[in-house]
Parts: sequence; structure tokens; C-alpha cells
Amino acid sequence: MAIANTVVLLYFIIFSVPVRVLAASQQQLRFDGKGEFRILQVSDMHYADGKSTPCEDVLPQQFPTCSDLNTTAFVHRMILAEKPHLIVFTGDNIFGFDATDAETSMNAAFAPAISSNIPWAAVLGNHDQESTLSREDVMKHIVAMKHTLSQLNPPEAHFIDGFGNYNLEVLGIENSSFVNKSVLNLYFLDSGDYSTVPSIPGYGWIKLSQQLWFQQTSMKLRRSYMNQPEAQKASAPGLRSYMNQPEAQKASAPGLVYFHIPLPEYASFDSSNFTGVKQEGISSASVNSGFFTTMVEAGNVKAVFTGHDHLNDFCGELTGIQLCYGGGFGYHAYGKAGWARRARVVVASLEKMKKGGWGAIKSIKTWKRIDDDHLTAIDGQVLWSKSSADVDNSVGLGMLK
Amino acid sequence: MAIANTVVLLYFIIFSVPVRVLAASQQQLRFDGKGEFRILQVSDMHYADGKSTPCEDVLPQQFPTCSDLNTTAFVHRMILAEKPHLIVFTGDNIFGFDATDAETSMNAAFAPAISSNIPWAAVLGNHDQESTLSREDVMKHIVAMKHTLSQLNPPEAHFIDGFGNYNLEVLGIENSSFVNKSVLNLYFLDSGDYSTVPSIPGYGWIKLSQQLWFQQTSMKLRRSYMNQPEAQKASAPGLRSYMNQPEAQKASAPGLVYFHIPLPEYASFDSSNFTGVKQEGISSASVNSGFFTTMVEAGNVKAVFTGHDHLNDFCGELTGIQLCYGGGFGYHAYGKAGWARRARVVVASLEKMKKGGWGAIKSIKTWKRIDDDHLTAIDGQVLWSKSSADVDNSVGLGMLK
Repeated sequence: MAIANTVVLLYFIIFSVPVRVLAASQQQLRFDGKGEFRILQVSDMHYADGKSTPCEDVLPQQFPTCSDLNTTAFVHRMILAEKPHLIVFTGDNIFGFDATDAETSMNAAFAPAISSNIPWAAVLGNHDQESTLSREDVMKHIVAMKHTLSQLNPPEAHFIDGFGNYNLEVLGIENSSFVNKSVLNLYFLDSGDYSTVPSIPGYGWIKLSQQLWFQQTSMKLRRSYMNQPEAQKASAPGLRSYMNQPEAQKASAPGLVYFHIPLPEYASFDSSNFTGVKQEGISSASVNSGFFTTMVEAGNVKAVFTGHDHLNDFCGELTGIQLCYGGGFGYHAYGKAGWARRARVVVASLEKMKKGGWGAIKSIKTWKRIDDDHLTAIDGQVLWSKSSADVDNSVGLGMLK
Repeated sequence: MAIANTVVLLYFIIFSVPVRVLAASQQQLRFDGKGEFRILQVSDMHYADGKSTPCEDVLPQQFPTCSDLNTTAFVHRMILAEKPHLIVFTGDNIFGFDATDAETSMNAAFAPAISSNIPWAAVLGNHDQESTLSREDVMKHIVAMKHTLSQLNPPEAHFIDGFGNYNLEVLGIENSSFVNKSVLNLYFLDSGDYSTVPSIPGYGWIKLSQQLWFQQTSMKLRRSYMNQPEAQKASAPGLRSYMNQPEAQKASAPGLVYFHIPLPEYASFDSSNFTGVKQEGISSASVNSGFFTTMVEAGNVKAVFTGHDHLNDFCGELTGIQLCYGGGFGYHAYGKAGWARRARVVVASLEKMKKGGWGAIKSIKTWKRIDDDHLTAIDGQVLWSKSSADVDNSVGLGMLK
């Protein structure tokens, strides 16, 4: 077979498969009766051994009584305050170097999510594998935990890089025309730990195989979304030519993407064009693997949420995509004494139709809560709204090079 | 079929297909009896209508007699001076806006290569499609021309982005153990023209589908190269585990990559760390699509050669890969009056074994010639040599984020 046939075959396969059907046992995410879907992001818990693990970078008066249990208490309080529909843990969930046993540490770290009966999802950071389990085994342990929607990888994808690459669909409200259609798409990726390429120092990155999976999945979800009015039936005639029109860009469900290590593009901002703070450098990989471009090309990603840099908690918009940090959450993680640990909340809201009933998503908002007595909410902002989506930066042609 | 099965199938296909077999009619590139392979790069000819098309940016005294024919003459002289084994035209071969008929213009532009009976290859720039033919038809016309090894795309790859993505293998010297093995791999890609994504302004970029093809092809060529001592037989037992060892990185033939628009990484240099000149900004795409990272990961690319920025002609090394410009060649292209048009030559040399016979490649050198009375050679440098290939920048671990 010629080399290039692989590319042909690949695309033949991509365009000919239906959207993945959820296993019957898997809990389906859905917008609530008020037309809302709330996501709590918890990043960099750095959990180790619980009560015996001291806090880092807290005020002297906090230190004597501070441990991993403060992290646990903060998760509990955030859940009570926000009543999220989904909790997303964006890596460095445990701090492997100090965790005596990875399973015990994970069980304790995720316990508040499990006891709340709320669905949760997790991705890996760069420290999760530094205790007694490999990255694969850490993710396998997570996937087997109660109430999680985490997946090891797309089923049977033995050759995708990393562990914990998967997507979740959030269906429209009951008794609406979107009842069986994903109106909000969530993507979870493994951004790796450290470079394994000798000539490249530093942190890992999202590889080509993962980007290909993202591109395929995004394309199929868009195709499914466009099959109006009935949800997820076979593709309509002339679909591909329609897909090439700019209008098709708008006819897709918004996507949110979660992973651990920020992209190099996070370094594009300063305080004049972001909301939140930037108190340290952007610790992305030292190379750019192109995932930001892949997301912009996909045309439906509205925001990206990472962790890793505990002292940065901003959201900045670049080329139509909001690049957000969760902000440091864990007490056994480096931080800044006197600068409270924090978590990010995202709320997607459906459009209420004039005739009654519910439409597609009209806005995606975010804020953070800091771990003070009142869990004070800060930095509220609109990440995306239907009315702001029509901006068209036309391509400048006629360049003479 | 589940979404992820596509990824599995893709990899199954990749790992199970043999290296492409050349069509019997296709001329095979091979190192000469002196153990050398010479490539002449001609970039940005900007050919239009021949004698009636005036020059741009030449000295006042040159202007009255200067036309596209000066470009033709320069190609002829370069061929006579260097006697290359392959001529590579790296895009903007014609300047579509001013070419009355694209076919006529191309026939004239490539005529010196054809009349020399030397194999030649071409990729597209951002201006080649601006006359009477689409990008696809421009590439189809090129592919049908005499003595060219250009290909429209990997056979049957209807869904790879762009036109003119292909690779060529340069076999070892006759009567050596490399007689049937590619010891130098050449890759040619279509870097596009302009962005078609509304939110991204500016020039095009190398897409995921093209990078996937590059990754697959590079991997298969490496596997083939490693099948010692006989060339290109079935894979050896335990090959995959060997591939994971750092030594395997070295056991592959060097690769050279040609396309038109420079990568964002070309902006990494200043005069302290490159050879040549930088007289204008780097007009890459406004986004980074990750192809530089894909090449570094592949582990065998030694140098990249682009055009597009006529006033830049440097080579700079980043993470083990030399990023080179060809330098502006064409007289109907913007330039700088008094700064001569130029072309780049690359020579790969085989190692002469002590016992007699020839080994693998020992060095890759480059220089440019400027279009003065003596075709003066300038900026000679070693791009890569066997002895310099053992540098290992180990990954720094232990970071606490």
C-alpha cells in the first residue's frame, strides 16, 4: 500500500463513522431546569498524605494547623457554595513526590467529589505519576473511581499519546428540541509531564495524535449538531458543501477544553488585556505544538482552562478563544502567603425562547471564589455570548511577498 | 464504530504498510561517484510574462534592460556553476497577478531546469495561483512537466491539505551497502497561501493532515533505514522496543524539508546566532501550527529551507534544526537595489570508509551564490555533521509546579 493511502483511509474512516454512543451505564450530563450547566474547576490540589502533610506558602499563623485537610475542606465548601453539575480536576491532583501511596492519596483527594454524588472528571498534571503509580495506572485508578466520567482514553485508542484524553457531551434541557443533542462539548486532554525529546528541555505538550483525535471529534460533533431538527440522525445531503461556508462556523455547539499545562499562547497577555492576575511566568512547554491553532481552526472552542502556574489566575482572549487559569487550589502546593487559594466556576446558560422553551447556549460566564470566610466571588466576566460571536476579522489579502 | 477506533485504525495502518515503492518510470535520485549530492534552491522567481515583464528594485542603470529573462539567465548560470543533482523551486515560482497565462509563465520559468536535463522539484508559494489557474491546477501542470519529480500529493490522498506534499528518497552510492537504501530524505510541503479562518489574519500554514503525513512518512523511512544490512526488508523482531531507545534517534537518514512560508520559529534569531542577513521581518503565519515541534520530535530533520522573505537569506540553528532562507532569486520580485539576487546550494557528502567504499552521510554543507559577474559564493557553513550530532540536552526534571 502506498504511504499516502493511510491518509486517505484515515479520512474515509473519520467521515464515515457515527458519533460515539455513550455506554448505558454512564451518567449523562444535561442542562438543568433553569437552563444552566455549572462546572467547578479545581486545579493543582497537590494532595499527599492528608493530615500529616503540611501546607506551603501560608501565613505564619496559619501554618501550625494547616494540612492537606484544608484542601479537602475547601473542595467541600466550594461544592456547597456552587452546587456544580460537574467538577473538573485539572491535574497535579496529587503531589507524587510526597504521596506515600498514590491510590490512598487519590482516594483522599477526590473524596469530597465522590461523597457529594456529583459527576466529576480529571486530567493528569506533571506530578501525578511521581508516587507509586505510572501515569497510565494513575489514570486507570481514577477511571475506576465512583461518580467519575473520566476515561483512560478514547476506547481502544492504544496509540494516542498520553492518558486521559476524552470528551463529554452536555445535552440540552429535557422537553426541548435539544433533548438528545449535545449543546456544550467538553474536551479533556493529557498535556504530558516532561519532554522526552533530548533536544527539547522542560514540560510536555499535546501531541499530533491527540490533536488529530480532537479535530476528528470536534468535526463529528459539529456534524451531529447540524442535523436539524432531529438530533443525531444520518448526515443531510449536501452537508459537506455547507460545512465549507462561513455560516457553518456558527452552527456548532460551543466547546470548552480542560488540561494541565498552559499553552505558549498564554504568554500573549498583560494586565491591559486580561482579567485576573499574572504573578509568575507562563510555564508552558518550550516548543509550540500547534494545539492553539488546531482549536482556532476547529471554530467552536470558546475557552481553555489549565492549571500548573499557581500564582496566575487570569483569563485572556486571543483569536476568539479565552485562555484561562484555574488559579492555585491546593494547600500543599507552592503559592503566596496571604494570597488566598482559589477555584474557578464556569456557567453556561441556554437561551429562553420567546415562544417558551429553551434554545441553544446564549452565554458562558466565569468567576472565581477565594478561600476566605465568605468564599468571596471575584473577577466575574462573560467568556462568550451569542451576540459577541459574529466578529469577523477578514483576512488581509494582496500582500506582495 | 467508536470515535477512537479511528485513531487505532490509523496507527494500525501506519505501522503495517511498507515504504512506498517508486513507479518504474520515475527517475531515482542517488549520490554520485564522489559521494556527493548537490541541491540548488531557487526561491521566489516571481516569473510573469518574460521579456515584457520589468524588474523590481534594481539599480537605475540596470532597469532599462532588465526583465524576467534576467531570472532565466541566472537559473542557467547557477546550473552551469553548480551542476546540481536536483533543483528545488520553493514557491512563488510565478507571480500570478502579472502572469497573463499561468501555464505559459510556468513553462518559461522552469525552462532552464528542463533544458538542463536535471531532475527538479517544486512547491507552491502564495502567489502561484493568482493568474489563470487554481493551486490544484498549478500543481497539476507542474507535475506533468518534463524531468520533474514533483508530485501533486501522496497518491490518492484526497484529504490532505494543500497541493504538492511529497517526499523523495536519495539512495546511497552504487556498489555500496546503501545501494538500495535512502540515505537522504527530502520532504516537500505546501505551506498554503492565506488563512481561510476568519479570526486568523495573514498567511497560511502547514496543517495537521500534512504534519500527520510527514510524521508517518518519517517514521516509515526510519524503520526502513534501520533494517540493516539489507535494505528495506521486512521489519526486524523487537524493532519497536529498539525504536524507543535514544540510540535509535541516530540510526536514521538525515532529512531536509522544503516549503515556501517560513515558520514562526524563524523569528528566534538575531545576527549573533545566524549566518547571512535579516533585512526584514519574518512573514510567517500569525499562528503557530506546530510543524517545527513535529520535525524536532521526528528526530531526523537537519535543515528546513523556505523562501517568501526575499531580503532574508540566513540560516539559524534552533533545537538541532537549521532554519534557512533561500534568499530572493527573481528579478520581478521585490528586492533591494544593489543587493544581488541569490540562490542557495546544499551539498550532502557521504563518509569514505577506511576499508574502502562508502558509508552514510557525514556532513551537509551550504553556501549561496550571488548574481554578480563571478557568481560569488558567500556564507559557506556546515549545517550538520556526523560528529556534531551527539549533543544531548538532557531534560531538566524536578520542577515543582
